Order: sequence, then structure tokens, then C-alpha cells
Amino acid sequence: MPPLRSWFNIPRGSHFSLANIPFGIISTPSSKTPRVAVAIGDHALDLEVFAANNGFSALSTIQPHQAVFSQASLNDFAALGRPIHSVVRKYIQSIFVQDTPYPEVLQTNAALQKQALFPLKEIKTHLPFRIGDYTDFFAGMNHAYTCGVLFRGPTTALQPNYKHLPVGYHGRASSVVVSGTPIRRPNGQILQNPSAERKVPVFSPCKKLDIELELGAFVCKSNPQGEPVPIGEAEESLFGVVLMNDWSARDIQAWEYVPLGPFNAKNFGTSISAWVVLAEALEPFKTKAMENDEQVLPYLQEKEEKSVYDIKLQVDLKTRSGASSTMTKTNAKNLVWSFPQMLAHHTITGCPMQPGDLLGSGTISGTTSSEMGSLLEQSENGKISVKLSGGEERKFLEDGDEVRISGVCGSDEEALVGFGECVGRIEPAHELKL
Amino acid sequence: MPPLRSWFNIPRGSHFSLANIPFGIISTPSSKTPRVAVAIGDHALDLEVFAANNGFSALSTIQPHQAVFSQASLNDFAALGRPIHSVVRKYIQSIFVQDTPYPEVLQTNAALQKQALFPLKEIKTHLPFRIGDYTDFFAGMNHAYTCGVLFRGPTTALQPNYKHLPVGYHGRASSVVVSGTPIRRPNGQILQNPSAERKVPVFSPCKKLDIELELGAFVCKSNPQGEPVPIGEAEESLFGVVLMNDWSARDIQAWEYVPLGPFNAKNFGTSISAWVVLAEALEPFKTKAMENDEQVLPYLQEKEEKSVYDIKLQVDLKTRSGASSTMTKTNAKNLVWSFPQMLAHHTITGCPMQPGDLLGSGTISGTTSSEMGSLLEQSENGKISVKLSGGEERKFLEDGDEVRISGVCGSDEEALVGFGECVGRIEPAHELKL
Ligand SMILES: [Ca+2]
Ligand SMILES: [Ca+2]
Ligand SMILES: [Mg+2]
Ligand SMILES: [Mg+2]
Ligand code: NI
Repeated sequence: MPPLRSWFNIPRGSHFSLANIPFGIISTPSSKTPRVAVAIGDHALDLEVFAANNGFSALSTIQPHQAVFSQASLNDFAALGRPIHSVVRKYIQSIFVQDTPYPEVLQTNAALQKQALFPLKEIKTHLPFRIGDYTDFFAGMNHAYTCGVLFRGPTTALQPNYKHLPVGYHGRASSVVVSGTPIRRPNGQILQNPSAERKVPVFSPCKKLDIELELGAFVCKSNPQGEPVPIGEAEESLFGVVLMNDWSARDIQAWEYVPLGPFNAKNFGTSISAWVVLAEALEPFKTKAMENDEQVLPYLQEKEEKSVYDIKLQVDLKTRSGASSTMTKTNAKNLVWSFPQMLAHHTITGCPMQPGDLLGSGTISGTTSSEMGSLLEQSENGKISVKLSGGEERKFLEDGDEVRISGVCGSDEEALVGFGECVGRIEPAHELKL
Repeated sequence: MPPLRSWFNIPRGSHFSLANIPFGIISTPSSKTPRVAVAIGDHALDLEVFAANNGFSALSTIQPHQAVFSQASLNDFAALGRPIHSVVRKYIQSIFVQDTPYPEVLQTNAALQKQALFPLKEIKTHLPFRIGDYTDFFAGMNHAYTCGVLFRGPTTALQPNYKHLPVGYHGRASSVVVSGTPIRRPNGQILQNPSAERKVPVFSPCKKLDIELELGAFVCKSNPQGEPVPIGEAEESLFGVVLMNDWSARDIQAWEYVPLGPFNAKNFGTSISAWVVLAEALEPFKTKAMENDEQVLPYLQEKEEKSVYDIKLQVDLKTRSGASSTMTKTNAKNLVWSFPQMLAHHTITGCPMQPGDLLGSGTISGTTSSEMGSLLEQSENGKISVKLSGGEERKFLEDGDEVRISGVCGSDEEALVGFGECVGRIEPAHELKL
């Protein structure tokens, strides 16, 4: 399929080509109330203004629901369901396509262009969803294996349950922030000498602050408590996907996590990209997941072979010196469980989902150091230094480090389906007077 | 202090004496919209109706905020802060006290009594808060020890971190339900023979369904991300307390929990009592926590010696046969960490709290079998049977079992500060066609 051409100037190489149409929440200098927008090229189309000015005049199905575009989150739009997301996306594509059947809506409507189209540089993006619950999985099998080798050695690297179920834990929804939000280094309890017989922690700023390169998927459909979402219907519950950085305090985690799992090591901040790429836009980039040599139980068996996404992922680290280095290049297909499998497992107990719930994939890593999505893996838990450009090196993050995750599907520079970026910069820990 | 007497008929032995004044969310047959109420004796006072009819005419501080009583949750009322909760409680006490200075407000206002006072039997109670995040701790040291002995033996029963920090995990906020809501037995993955070399799970209804007797505390104050709540200010962030039953699937947990903690074993349902007892009402019942023989770090050190509550707790189990047995009698002082300590620890990383967040205490147990707050402990993980009245016995819960937790402070039958009850009945697992 040749790329859709637009009458609107979409720069070559833009993540937000006509093939994409991702949704987000914006505010502008002249209107600080957050509302719904789509990204197109290097602009945002304000859907509240667009709707209020008859932008949807040729799409009757959305007209009774236009109030969703004035909301400060995508929750209400998402709750309309996948068929509506699809018609809205396709309609916006039809508005921007070169031979649009509706030129009067925007192409020849200079007034509305001026009112509703904003350069991305001039707007502020906000957290796209009001997140009710956030769950983080562990589906990056290379990451799970590499970490298992570090902590337990190669023979028991993967736990016995790993290939039978998508291991996950409930995360802290209130700590999820939009790309660009600074992340403060947490304080906490750390065991300085884990091999000492008497284990007495000290209070300290985290010394092993790390990233986790992940995808996040947003839920768009609720299920009643007690009623699982069957695997065959799970796709319909998924709104779209963002990049995610699950900032992690490795030293806090090592001390606290027995026996109930990671807690304070994870709840100081998780960053997500601002523009949610609809599941429909990602459909052409579906690919096979990592091979699972165990037979999974029927409730986790998918009909389609292609269940994860072929997304090129990259992590760049810019230090206080201003020098930037590419730390990681990998691909989102390095997952052994798909989002539909995660959702089917999560709800098999009857756990109720709601629109706006966030599922994290788990850290996405390849097998070589430069493909690994965490410093824990690359530095072998602080044993070796990771070389950066300009002669600097890192075992874990230092204050002032800025981490930039980007992700993109496709190679046709005029038809990319990309995520933009997910950025966060480390602020020094508070010195606490206690 | 002699008990406050009321002109209103408050039955002897009522949990909701004038010394209490707990808050909740109700609806009535004639008005289905949930709104705020307090419980008083065996009635609820509808605060929306009370406010609309000049009930607060003698309390000018609340007048600008009266809209909070028309909300479907206590979030907005809680967010007003502890000083406001206190004046509202004391004002309502002053309305009901025998020599009320404001008889015209309610005592001699038969019309408003008719409109605003409803027998508890005739109303429906709803989840008191819109819960943004729910965290469950593990502060019942007897429970932690007994479970540790079961799984690891007595020498390593408590993990090295246990006395240094309040161990906890993030729970599933969407699964918290109000007392009376049925709980469906979850399906999931179970390892039938944990000692087999090749570990292959089966799909099954949970066979080790259990309760956990807990308290829950609601947060009323937010802290900005990155900014901890100091231990000395944590009390101001706590709205009040409920009874909690953290239903648990022990067999699902045993297989899934490595290495990220309990997940599906906990997310199918957690029940809480409907009436939230204000922290202020519990203040006279503060007592010393269990002794911690470790020196805790300064950020967890409390000024006051009395930091937990002397609450008599009881669990009754009624089987399908209709016979009811008291399964547990214990006291809420069996905690080694207080709610302020939990909050200070939770936020030491900068984790942001919001009004409506729920903190679970962890299972509260004494040291003898009839004082233990879970069947896991009483049955030694299914090794011995717990005798019920009428000749029945249990290792874990069966379908149709109804579990009733109750809790009360004080012994003066005219001045009890009680929680009412937290009830749930087990429905059979779904037979899933997969
Ligand atoms: Ca993670
Ligand atoms: Ca618990
Ligand atoms: Mg995180
Ligand atoms: Mg639970
Ligand atoms: Ni500060």
C-alpha cells in the first residue's frame, strides 16, 4: 500500500504520519484547560475546537459523543470502544488526505486551521489517561533471563512459572507521569553489605537508579468483577500503546522485595510517552512473539500467530555534560507474552478492568549488551561500566542524566507509525531532615 | 468521661454511639443517587438532605463546602482535612446530644427527622471512597511469623527486612468492594504437586480460598510527587479506618508469586466495611504496638508511644447449612507498624498519595489458633481441620460460606466506637468454556 499523501505539510520522517493519528491530551498557552488532540506531522489538531467548529460534520456517528473531546483525559473517548476509535481515526485521515472528500472542513478553512492546529513545540502535553490501576508485567524473556542469571545463575534463571503465565505485579497508578516530567531520585533503605550476617540497612539516596525500557497498553473496556475477559475478546479491550520507562531503584528493591515483591523501588515514578498510538494503527506491524517452548493453558492460547509488535526501540542517555549516547537499540518483539495474553491472565480471576487501566510489558531487551533495556543488565548489576560517548561511563544513572526512549514502526519515511519519545531527567535526591 | 447521652434512641450496644459518628455513602429506595451520611445508632443521617435543610446552619465553616455531602464518595469531604472532619463530627454530636444547643435543627424538627434519618436496614451502603490506589502491608507480626514458620521454618520465619520496614505491596484498587458484595471463587493456575521435578500447572478453581482479617485506613491528604510525608505529619493524612477482608487464593499465590509477589491471588476482591470511623473517634483507643526489638531508622520513629488501636476483632463463619461459628477473636493491637509509619515509608521515595487511597494493615493474628486471622494459619496450610459448630470443619473456604468480620472499641455499651461489620459470601467459580 503506498503511503497516504496529505495536503498538509507532514515532514518526511515524522512519527506522526497519516498512517498513525495518535491521541493525546494537550493544553496551549492561550487555553490552559487540557483536552483531546491528535498528532499529525509536527502539529496537534485540537479535537475540542475541531468538533466545536463542525469538524465532524461528515461523521454522524461521533456527533452524540463529541463531549469526549473536551475531557482532560482519553478515558471517555476510549470507553466508546474500538469501532468508534477506528471511524474517528479514518475520518481524520480522510480530512487530511490529499484528495479529501471534505476540503471545506479543514483544507480550505483557513480560520479553523488557525484555531485548531498548533505546532507541537508550542503546546503542553498531559498524562493521556486518568489511570485507575496500573499493572507491570515481566514479559521480556531476555530481560527475565539475563536478570535471573545475574541473581541465581543460568540453570534457574527463569522461575518455573515464567513460561506458563505472564508474571506481573500491581504498580502504583498515581506515580505514572507524562514524558518530560522530571524524576526525583528516591531515598530509602539500602543494605550496604548484603553478605553480612547481621543485616542492618542504612538510609540513603538510591545508588542504583535504573531505567526499564517498556511498552504500556491502555485498556478501553470494562469487565464486571468476577467475569474474565476471554483471550479471543482481549484485543477489543485494548485502546493503544505508549512507550514507558519504569524507573527502578535496584538497591531499594534488593532489600525490600522479599516476600511480597517490588514496592518502593518502583513507586516514585513511571514515565510514559504523551501520544497513544491506536491498536488499529499498529495492526500492520504485528509479528510473532518470542518462542515459548511450554504448552500454555487454553485460556492463554491465541488464535493469531502474530501477537506482538515490530517496533524499533532506542534509548539515548544525555549526561549533565550535554553529551548524548545511544544506550540501547532493540525491538518490541522481544516479548514472550502479548498484551491480550496479559489481559486474559489478569482477568482470569475476575479482576475488574476499567478504561484507562495501564498494562506495562516488562523490560524489553535483546541478548547483547547494546540491546538491553536496563543498566542492571548492561552493567551486570554494577560490576562493569557502560561506556558513553565523550569518555564518560555509567553503572547506574547519575543526577542530571536525561533518558530518552523512542520507538517507531515501519521504514517508509512518509508512512511511519511512531511514538515520539518518552523523556525524563533525574533530579538529585532530597536531603531529608528527619 | 461519662458517655454522651442523646435525645435520639441509640440502642445499648450499638457500634454507632454518639462517641463514634462514622461516615459512609448511602442510597435509599426513594433516592438512588449515592451521597454522604453518618451512622448513628441504627439509623443513617443523610447529610445531603440535612445540609439542604439548613442542618448546618450553626456551623458556618462547613457552609461553603456543603456540596461535598452530595458526592457519591467521601473523597471531597476527606480532602477538606482533619480539622474540618473534627468540627463536622463534633457539630453532629452537638445536634444529637441530650441538651443540644440547637434543638430546632433536628430534635424538634420532625419534618427533617423524617426526611434525613433512615433505618440502616432500609438503606443501601456503597463503597465509601473512589480508591485511586490501594496498598496492602504485612504489619501483623504474629501472622508474618506463623506463615514464615509454615513455609520456611522457625529460624528464618521473619525475613531480614521485616522489622526494619513495613513490608507491603501495591494492590488492585478496582477490586475493593463494600461489605455485602458477593465474592466469586477465582479460577487460575495451580501447581498440584509442588515437589514434582517438572512443574506444570493445571487450570482450576482456587482450592485454598482464604480470608485475611485486616484494618484499612483511608488517606485524606495528597503529597506532591517527589515529596515525602514526614512521620510527624503522617497522622494528619489519615482520614479514618475500616474493617477489611483481603480474600486470598493461597494455591494461586504459591505458584505465581515468584519473583514479583502476589498478583492474581489477591485481585479478585477485597471487602471493606461501609462506615469509616474517623481517626479522631479512635484516638481514645490508641495503644502500644507490638514490640520491635530492632532500632528503626529515624524516618520511621514516632514521637507517641501509642500508635495502633485497641480494637476487639472477631471473625464469624456461617456455612451453607446456616450454622455460624466464631473462627477468630483477636485485637488490632497485634501490629508492629502503625498506619503513620506505613504512610511515611510508602512516601519516603516521593510516592504521591491522594485522598481516597487505601492502606491495608496486613493480617491481624494473635498467637493461638483461635486468635489467627486466616485459615492458612489455623489449618497450617491445609494440614489440619478447623472445627466449626454443628460438626462441620474447614481447611479453606467452601462455596456458600459467609465470612463476617466485626470490630469494636471500648466496653461501655453506651459509648462504643464500632465498625459494624464486613461481610462477604463465596459464590462458586465460573465453569469456563475456553
Ligand atoms: Ca518493569
Ligand atoms: Ca493481606
Ligand atoms: Mg516505576
Ligand atoms: Mg484481596
Ligand atoms: Ni522539594
